[in-house]
Amino acid sequence: MHLVKTSEKYFKVDPWLVVEEGFDPAKQRLSESIFSVANEFMCVRGYFEEGYSGDHLLGSYFSQLYDLMDIKYPQRFKGFITEGATMLNAVDWLYTRISVDGEELDLAKVKFSDFRRTLDLRNAILKREFLWTTAQNKQLRITFLRFTNMVDTAMGCQRIIFEPLNFSGEVKVCSGLDFDTIYELAAGWDQTEGTGSSLEKKENLNFWTCQRKELTDGLYCIQARTERSKINLFSSFRLVADQTVNPRYVEREKFVGAEFSLQLQKNQATAFDKLVVNHWEETGGGEQVWQNGLRLAKKYSAVTYEGAFENHKQFWSDFWRRMDIEIEGDPELQQGVRYSIYTVYSNYHGESDRRNVICKLAGEVYNGVNFWDTEIYCHRMYMFLNPEIGRKLLMYRYHYLPRALENAKRVDLEGARYPFSTITGVEEMGAWQHVELEIHQNLAIYYAIWHYDKVCQDKQFLYNEGIEILLQMCRCMASWGGWSPKNGDFGFYGVMGPDEFHMMVNHNCYTNYMGKKMFNYTLAVLAEMKQTAPDLYDKAVKKV
Amino acid sequence: MHLVKTSEKYFKVDPWLVVEEGFDPAKQRLSESIFSVANEFMCVRGYFEEGYSGDHLLGSYFSQLYDLMDIKYPQRFKGFITEGATMLNAVDWLYTRISVDGEELDLAKVKFSDFRRTLDLRNAILKREFLWTTAQNKQLRITFLRFTNMVDTAMGCQRIIFEPLNFSGEVKVCSGLDFDTIYELAAGWDQTEGTGSSLEKKENLNFWTCQRKELTDGLYCIQARTERSKINLFSSFRLVADQTVNPRYVEREKFVGAEFSLQLQKNQATAFDKLVVNHWEETGGGEQVWQNGLRLAKKYSAVTYEGAFENHKQFWSDFWRRMDIEIEGDPELQQGVRYSIYTVYSNYHGESDRRNVICKLAGEVYNGVNFWDTEIYCHRMYMFLNPEIGRKLLMYRYHYLPRALENAKRVDLEGARYPFSTITGVEEMGAWQHVELEIHQNLAIYYAIWHYDKVCQDKQFLYNEGIEILLQMCRCMASWGGWSPKNGDFGFYGVMGPDEFHMMVNHNCYTNYMGKKMFNYTLAVLAEMKQTAPDLYDKAVKKV
Repeated sequence: MHLVKTSEKYFKVDPWLVVEEGFDPAKQRLSESIFSVANEFMCVRGYFEEGYSGDHLLGSYFSQLYDLMDIKYPQRFKGFITEGATMLNAVDWLYTRISVDGEELDLAKVKFSDFRRTLDLRNAILKREFLWTTAQNKQLRITFLRFTNMVDTAMGCQRIIFEPLNFSGEVKVCSGLDFDTIYELAAGWDQTEGTGSSLEKKENLNFWTCQRKELTDGLYCIQARTERSKINLFSSFRLVADQTVNPRYVEREKFVGAEFSLQLQKNQATAFDKLVVNHWEETGGGEQVWQNGLRLAKKYSAVTYEGAFENHKQFWSDFWRRMDIEIEGDPELQQGVRYSIYTVYSNYHGESDRRNVICKLAGEVYNGVNFWDTEIYCHRMYMFLNPEIGRKLLMYRYHYLPRALENAKRVDLEGARYPFSTITGVEEMGAWQHVELEIHQNLAIYYAIWHYDKVCQDKQFLYNEGIEILLQMCRCMASWGGWSPKNGDFGFYGVMGPDEFHMMVNHNCYTNYMGKKMFNYTLAVLAEMKQTAPDLYDKAVKKV
Repeated sequence: MHLVKTSEKYFKVDPWLVVEEGFDPAKQRLSESIFSVANEFMCVRGYFEEGYSGDHLLGSYFSQLYDLMDIKYPQRFKGFITEGATMLNAVDWLYTRISVDGEELDLAKVKFSDFRRTLDLRNAILKREFLWTTAQNKQLRITFLRFTNMVDTAMGCQRIIFEPLNFSGEVKVCSGLDFDTIYELAAGWDQTEGTGSSLEKKENLNFWTCQRKELTDGLYCIQARTERSKINLFSSFRLVADQTVNPRYVEREKFVGAEFSLQLQKNQATAFDKLVVNHWEETGGGEQVWQNGLRLAKKYSAVTYEGAFENHKQFWSDFWRRMDIEIEGDPELQQGVRYSIYTVYSNYHGESDRRNVICKLAGEVYNGVNFWDTEIYCHRMYMFLNPEIGRKLLMYRYHYLPRALENAKRVDLEGARYPFSTITGVEEMGAWQHVELEIHQNLAIYYAIWHYDKVCQDKQFLYNEGIEILLQMCRCMASWGGWSPKNGDFGFYGVMGPDEFHMMVNHNCYTNYMGKKMFNYTLAVLAEMKQTAPDLYDKAVKKV
């Protein structure tokens, strides 16, 4: 009955790198997760872009890009939701196929050595290299580089370098954009399986319908739409090689790409770059998204891999100068701390106040939702980095205030109840014991507002949006709470506290204490506003 | 957030009857449940056998006759079962269609008055009568009678009486056996709906495949098989009318029946009886079940409706003489108590030690499983009525001891863990908070064994089967429990107590106390056996 979490020392320790030397297929899903690169807008797991027939999870995600899925229960009770948004596996924009003498590269099948996968935390770039020995004993060193541009976040960049050690000759490549990806979790979230998902049925796990494909001005473009949420995602790429290539345009149902050959010279490196531009809009119609996507792709059509990487590197360098934590004498801890900072910042860096630090951008479990973690753990890192980002994360909640009001009504509460887990602003997950009993999301949001006020003193936010959020959250907590029949004291009954384990707890210390602090703080803000900003006070009181 | 249960006074109060005067279609599902008749072997809800197009649940069930269904979760954790047995809606053996001048009788559509539905608790018979006024102003009084024979439990008996008030003429009847019934709960158990089931999809809710149909020697026979559990159910009927009828044999995919006309005389009652014999076997092959069913049908082929009812009445009369509780001065309470006794005894009367007092035989919610209610509430009524029945209910648990051992292993426990809810001896339901946290099923079984020992002193059972059950249950509870880090005392952590509400409770008083009593009692039985039955002591200790 006990879950044991043990730490395994699979990756090499280095203050600025995460290194995998030699490849263990049994650890591929883990490695894919660890070697993810992301830029808030999008994320790709560290999967093998050349195709891999072993067990793995090819994952390419866009923060907030969801489809809606049914949620089933053995027994459904009041409040249980039956449909929820979930971050969908999207376009494989790294798609590549490589062959020599008709032998296709697949690390589950070919002979290879000197495998090394390295994530450079300083520059947020993933490098993978190995030596492929073909059936005909040709030795070809291949290096894959990829990064998701932190400055122009629509851009994903890939470079592949070939270096033949004992031959000169041809390598055939197919590079493309593939919407025929599998969203595994739709088959059920099975936490009894190592992989997290129960793949009894592998079919019907793709939720994209291709809308349009085109090759125009050297731009390979494709757009597909999600099934229920009807979200359009545009994806495009350009190829830049250090030799003249003659690509052939290829189309399949959910795929566009280019097939070409590269002429390799013994002991000489030959590379090609794939410069990808992705664009999506939650509500835009197909034509609008296509036009906006194409415009963006053209805007970036002169950007080189090196140019993009220069900007990207500079951005991360600025970040690390401010936010690095140096730990002397403990290289493991040093690596761990930097990896954590890297991960959080890759997930969200304040580009948009319509995105959030979501639970996991690098995989499917937890459905790409955000929980209360942002406000209770992450908010201060961002606030101390830049108050503007601190404000954006709070504005994210303000935008979803109307949905939080709906979410309260769903379970007969008043005011605003921010969901336990959300993409669209309402509740997205079916684990009712958490969803219905954890009522401290509101309290975490109060805490971030309070902390932001104390540190940044942004009264503009506090007296306009902040107070509105606070008042509606107080209303909700007042309607949840009850008076003790023993001593008449107010408190919360039947909750799950922040341990996220014990159910139906009365007077959970954390929940009660934070609730009290929220009520008191809200009263204090009102008193303060009455004195220093009576107009805004009137406005707020009238509005809610 | 609060569920309110209010009592409505819809039915008439009478010490021995439950009466519905006038028909409220909005209460049909409730009435069908209240007006069920059952004889342990089978149960039919009080549905309108002539067909009814309004909202209702045509339910015909056989205790322990199940099919297996998938159980889905938003997130699956260790211990969650993914398939469970559930009591299947079976053959509609009361199936009747009635028409006059081409107008089909359907109380949702025709004009009728003087509706009265009466359950006679003393004789366990359901009567329904009304006056049908046809479109051509013909007035036809119809009375339906039905009972499930308590003596020969394979037999279901139906009588329909026609009395035309203002005409002489023909009534057309179709009487049959219909396996094309709908198992609603397979569409999901939605407790937010009044009906208990969410019928978004009405299709694919029948799990019967017809195997064979035949008319032989006046016996209309049909046999069908469940989808996954492959259980064969044989059903047959004979018709007996008080005039010569010329039935035409009718077959459909999952149906056999007889079409015939009755000639009615003004102000004169004309009746026909349908005498049904049902038979099923959990493991028997199709041919075996058919032959055994047919043999049984032939065995009962001379039994008349009156003869069957005479035996049935006598059986109930003997029962009431022993078990009736008379309450003077409070007719509502008198009716309520008798109805409760009637319901429990209809559910189980000790015919078989392979059946149990299941949670609900008269509908689909709770899946036809048995819980801990039998041992903790019902066992003493049976034991005081007849010690033999008390023993049978305990033997039921003994038969399933091997499955209880499996059920413990499933969640890493030792010994025997009797399931929270079961038909086949393992866990059948997916409400994990109950299934995994309520560990007092074992304790209820201990309690029944202890009580049976105290009252009936059946040392034969106790020293053979009883001690084996006790030892394996003790083992399980020892492996669940833990020692308090505070004071070293032993107890049970993370349980749901008998309130069936609070989750993850440590040291729940009932659970701890009953656990202690079980351990002590088992030790006492062992000490007693060592002295008075050392051979059986050695045998028991060696076996477990």
